[in-house]
This record gives sequence, structure tokens and C-alpha cells, in this order.
Amino acid sequence: MTNAPTKKHRVTVVGSGNWGSAISKIVAENTKAHPELFHPEVKMWVYEEEYQLSPNHPAYDPAKHSQPEKLSTIINTLHENVKYLPSIPLPENVIATPNIRTAAEDATILIFNVPHQFVFNICNQLDGSCLPYARAVSCIKGVDVTPDGVSLFSDTIGKRLGIYCGALSGANIANEVAAEKFSETTVAYNPPIGPTKDYPNGLVEVPADLPAVDHAFLKSLFHRPYFHVRVVSDVAGVSLGGALKNIVAIAAGFVDGLGWGNNAKAAVMRVGLLEMRKFGKMFFADSCKSATFTEESCGVADLITSCNGGRNHKCAKLSVQKGKPIEEIEAEELNGQKLQGTSTASEVNEYLKRRGLEAEFPLFTAVHLILKGEAKVENLPDLIETL
Amino acid sequence: MTNAPTKKHRVTVVGSGNWGSAISKIVAENTKAHPELFHPEVKMWVYEEEYQLSPNHPAYDPAKHSQPEKLSTIINTLHENVKYLPSIPLPENVIATPNIRTAAEDATILIFNVPHQFVFNICNQLDGSCLPYARAVSCIKGVDVTPDGVSLFSDTIGKRLGIYCGALSGANIANEVAAEKFSETTVAYNPPIGPTKDYPNGLVEVPADLPAVDHAFLKSLFHRPYFHVRVVSDVAGVSLGGALKNIVAIAAGFVDGLGWGNNAKAAVMRVGLLEMRKFGKMFFADSCKSATFTEESCGVADLITSCNGGRNHKCAKLSVQKGKPIEEIEAEELNGQKLQGTSTASEVNEYLKRRGLEAEFPLFTAVHLILKGEAKVENLPDLIETL
Repeated sequence: MTNAPTKKHRVTVVGSGNWGSAISKIVAENTKAHPELFHPEVKMWVYEEEYQLSPNHPAYDPAKHSQPEKLSTIINTLHENVKYLPSIPLPENVIATPNIRTAAEDATILIFNVPHQFVFNICNQLDGSCLPYARAVSCIKGVDVTPDGVSLFSDTIGKRLGIYCGALSGANIANEVAAEKFSETTVAYNPPIGPTKDYPNGLVEVPADLPAVDHAFLKSLFHRPYFHVRVVSDVAGVSLGGALKNIVAIAAGFVDGLGWGNNAKAAVMRVGLLEMRKFGKMFFADSCKSATFTEESCGVADLITSCNGGRNHKCAKLSVQKGKPIEEIEAEELNGQKLQGTSTASEVNEYLKRRGLEAEFPLFTAVHLILKGEAKVENLPDLIETL
Repeated sequence: MTNAPTKKHRVTVVGSGNWGSAISKIVAENTKAHPELFHPEVKMWVYEEEYQLSPNHPAYDPAKHSQPEKLSTIINTLHENVKYLPSIPLPENVIATPNIRTAAEDATILIFNVPHQFVFNICNQLDGSCLPYARAVSCIKGVDVTPDGVSLFSDTIGKRLGIYCGALSGANIANEVAAEKFSETTVAYNPPIGPTKDYPNGLVEVPADLPAVDHAFLKSLFHRPYFHVRVVSDVAGVSLGGALKNIVAIAAGFVDGLGWGNNAKAAVMRVGLLEMRKFGKMFFADSCKSATFTEESCGVADLITSCNGGRNHKCAKLSVQKGKPIEEIEAEELNGQKLQGTSTASEVNEYLKRRGLEAEFPLFTAVHLILKGEAKVENLPDLIETL
């Protein structure tokens, strides 16, 4: 007979942008809902900054808020991330924590939700402060593609910190999730058993006095009535979906810019979905499952969401309609932010070209060529035709 | 050494609505493009009616067109189906033929493209007039679901006429295809070898002096630079996709009517896609392939098109927005035409209920209950939640 665990998991969210805050809200609702598994308190690491509360904010009090304050203080007082997720009440058990090492040091579950360009630096700051048996989940969209290979942020985090890291990705526009509009997501978690290349000494086991971290546990951590979760084992597929769909969203934007109609858009999305899957199967043969792309929220559903809206689709559409390079539209429309799809298209093309595989991915290749001005949008059907 | 075929196929399209005319156009372009396989002439059966050409038509000549004329005469003179596919030039090798038996009697390839309620009557008219070795393809969307079983129109046609019938279905809004806007489709063809239950004497073989009717041949018949074709063997899957997607389109319309956003819509589409596939696998286990639903134009792409537009989606959305039963919206919006999704939802539910399987298809069941007023749209997430 197994003894029931006597301890509980402590959860920390590393990141407090709009998606990080939305995930903190969900997780804090669940730590309260499942007291048998979790300490209620969820620490949320906040990159500290000074913030001046607007006099229009309903909680504004001139006696308290006339000067800029620390963002973490405002979050812990008003229970709202007034800067990055305004107007959404956060549960009071979300505790904004400006020191990243303090935030992480007693966490048995770490959820990473930061812009991808900050991952390396954050791991450097965290180095040595995590519990050796902590488990992590990366909500960071995308993968790191260089001509030499494709690396997953979950792997980067896991290797750098010496802990195991899974992934979460889905059709998840953060503001819709935060507003409790119905959404689904996919969580991937598949820790290795025994020593592996990445974990030569094997993973440090989760102590027996803590609840086991398995698929059912992760569902309890993330699933809400308005945020349905499926947990799978394919970390590579879940991570790749969130990156490669942006290439397809650009193609869908091109087609919408031309006014080609619903058939054409659906066709481009179908072809793109199969290329996403083929890429996964070709380069992560050991782990990538077909079903992750064609059945899960992180695959087909995220693709649908991204092709019906989102900045990659929008900028590609405008670029065709206005007859301008997409970089110009990006500068006009995104207020300094960068399109992920254009860089992913270029990185993926570089990777494929080096392996002589461009022809195997006609849609990815066509998007890259069109973005470079070396092919015409109007020729997309010819470029992806298979005879 | 095999002798090259000395004869050529003759193609007839049974039907001349907007989709029938668009398919006739495509097929006639291909009979000209592949003279080694086909006689160029494509007969198109036209349900004869009198039609008064508008004085605004560019070809209107008061000396010729002041009185109503036979529609078949107008089509053969102006090379345009002025009533059902106006403004689209038809190739001159499309020959409108008002007598259905004359249209079919020398055809080696019959393409059925009529409204589904006319299938039985048309087969009765054709009985005994088809070549025994003719092959057919049904472009009729949907399936015939009764509490006793699901029958495919392709099977109904094939059995009634004693010939083999495959199917064509995809993300194909007819007017977009006719305007040569890029589209894809799926053709399914899998004639039995030897005697079967449906063909106790086996199929009559296509004579050796005719080109073989195989997947490559069917691609030559339907594929165009603007209409990409994939040929598969799963006739049941291709046919089911075109019917079941209408239930999902209603769910997507509900979600859009509530203004729930892109995440929710993508979630409902993903759940619906998997229920479509499950239905196919459960009831056509021998033949239905998973991939037909998740990978082909007739599955995921047609679903996407139908959830981004189309009458089922539109009426469901308006019904939520206006707080009216969908039947009222149908009467207001469709000018006497009927929604397929509502009847399919009810027929599929009847079929599932009799087998005690409603809980296995929570989205299909939820749509039916909402349409009947026995569940609320707002509860859709709860109704489809799996714990």
C-alpha cells in the first residue's frame, strides 16, 4: 500500500506579460480548487518596473497613487496586472514577486511564460536556485531554428536548469483566455526514465511525499471549465506547432489579400498543416506524433486561430492589398513589435536548404520566396501543385 | 506487352446547377487537355425549363431572345448557364442535353451532381440506359442518415444502376471554383474486386480497349491548375465529411453569435473534426480512414470553409444574435432553401440515440439539444467537457 503524499506542490509562474498573467490566473484558480495537491499561493515573477496608475482606474486613490509605484506592489494591492493584463481581476493567491530567485527557489512546479528572447538570460539568473526535483512547463511559443538544428525552448530550459521541462501550447489568444472565453490547450509532458543524453545522471525524482507529477496532475493544474486541457507526450510536436503555424498564417494572409476566397484559404491551411506535420516527423522522428498536429489544440486549432486573425495573417494580407513589402507593413502596424512568421519562414528555409529538402516543403518554400520577392503571390497554386 | 487502348472515354455530367455546371466546365477543360484519354465532348444533362434571357445580358439580341427559350438551347448557343452559373463562360465542348437517357447512354464516365432529393428519381429514369461497364463519381454532398443506418449517395447510385460509383467532395464553394479561384478537392474511388454483397456478380470490367479507370485517370479528369485533386480510396469518409461538417458549422455559428472569439471557434472545430472521424470509424470501420478527415480537402479543409461562411454557420450565428429559433432565421434568410445542418444534426442524433451512443459524441449531441431548445448555447463548453 502506498502512503498518501503528505506534502503539496508549490507553483511559480516565471513571467507576467499578458499570457503569463492569464496563466497565473488559471493556475491560481486551480491551486485553490485542488488543495489536496497544491499550496494555494502562486508566485508570479514580475520584471520590476515603475508604473503610474491612471487616475481613470477605478481603484485610483490620489492619497496612494499620485506617484509611480512598483508594478509588483500594484499587482499585490489591486490584484490586477494593470500594465499587461488590465481590467482582469487576478485571484488574491497570485503573489507578484520581483526577485526571480526568490520566486523560484521553493517551487516544485515552474511555469515559464516569457518572451522567447529572454529565455537564456532568465535561465542564467535562475541557475542553481531551483529545487533539483522541480518540474517545469514552458508556455513559450515557438522553437529556435538555426541552420544546424531545431531546438525547443522546453529543452533549452530543462538542460540549462537540470530539471525536466514540458510544454503548453494551443489556440490561446491571451486576452480571450483571461476573459474566460472558452478555449482549449495542449500540455505535453514526457520526462525520461533513466539516464539520457540530456540527463546523463537521470532526472532527480519527485519525492514520494509529494503528489506524483503525471498527466492527470497537469490536467488538475491547468484545466478550467473555460480552458479545456488535453495532456499528451509529444513535447516536440506541441512546440513546433506554435512556431510553424506562423508560416502558414502568412500564406493564408496572402490568399486573403488577393481576395481568393474561402476555398483557397482552406486549401493553403490544409497543405500547411501537412507540411508542419511532415517537418515534425522528419526532424523529430523519435518523438513527434502525427496526431499532435492534426488532432490537438496546439496543431490544427492553433493554425485555424492564427489564420483567422493574428498579426502574421494581418500583415501578410495588408502587404498584398497595399502592394508593399511586409517589413513596411510590420513597421506601420506593429508599433515596434516583430512578426514571428517572417523570421521563422526564413530560418526554416535555411535549415531545409542546407539539407536539400526545399522541394519537400513547397508551401514553406513558397512563403519564403514570396517574402524575399523571388516568387509571386499569384503563383502560389503552381508553387504548391503536386502532379 | 499490353496494347495501348484504342478507344476513349465519353464523359457525361448528370446535373447542371451551379456546382454541376462548374464541374462540367472543369471536366470539359480536361477532356480537351487529355485527348489520349477522352472524347472532347462532355454531355451535361439539363433539367429542361423555359428561360427568358435578360435584355441586360451582353449577348441579348431582340431578334433572337425576345421570347423565353429552352435553357439547353441557350446554354448550347451562348456557352453559359445563364440561370444557374451566370457570367461564367463554359467550354464549347460542354453540350447541354435535356434527355437524361440520351445524355447517359454512351457515357463510360458518369458524374452525378444533382440536389440529393432528386437522386432516387434520376436513378429510376436512368435505369437500364447506362453502359454496364460505366464508372460513376458522385459529387452530391451528404449522406442519407436514418435511424436504421447511414447510406452514401454513391452506394445508392451504384447499386441502383448496377455500376460502381465513387465520390468527390472538398472545400468547394461552387462560384469560387467556377471563377477559377484556387481550390482543392478529394476524389474517392475504390471499386471492389470480385463478387461482393453489393455486386454479387462482380463489376463488369472496363473493356481493355479503353484507358483504365484508376486514381491517375481520375486525377486527369478533375485536376486543373486552379483545382487541385487528391485521389483516395475512402468513399465513406469523403461522403461523410460533407454531411457531418454541417453540424460543426452550426456549433461554430453559435460560438460566433455569442462573440466568444477565435479560441472558442477553433476549439469547437477541433472537437467537431474528431467527432466526424469517430463517427466514420465507428460506423464504416472497414473503409473509413482517419486521414480522410484530418488530412484531406473533404475533411479538415471543407470544415474550415464551412465554419468561415456558408449558410449553416450564418443562420446559427444570426439565431444566437437575434435570439430567434434557427427555423425563423432559415425562413428569413434562405429564400425557401433548407439548412442541411439542422436535419443532419437531428438524423445523426436519432441514429446515435438508438445505439446509446449520444455521450460518445458530445458536440453532435449538444448541437442537437441546443437546436431543440433543450440546452443553452452558453453551456456548450460544459456539454463538451471531458474530464
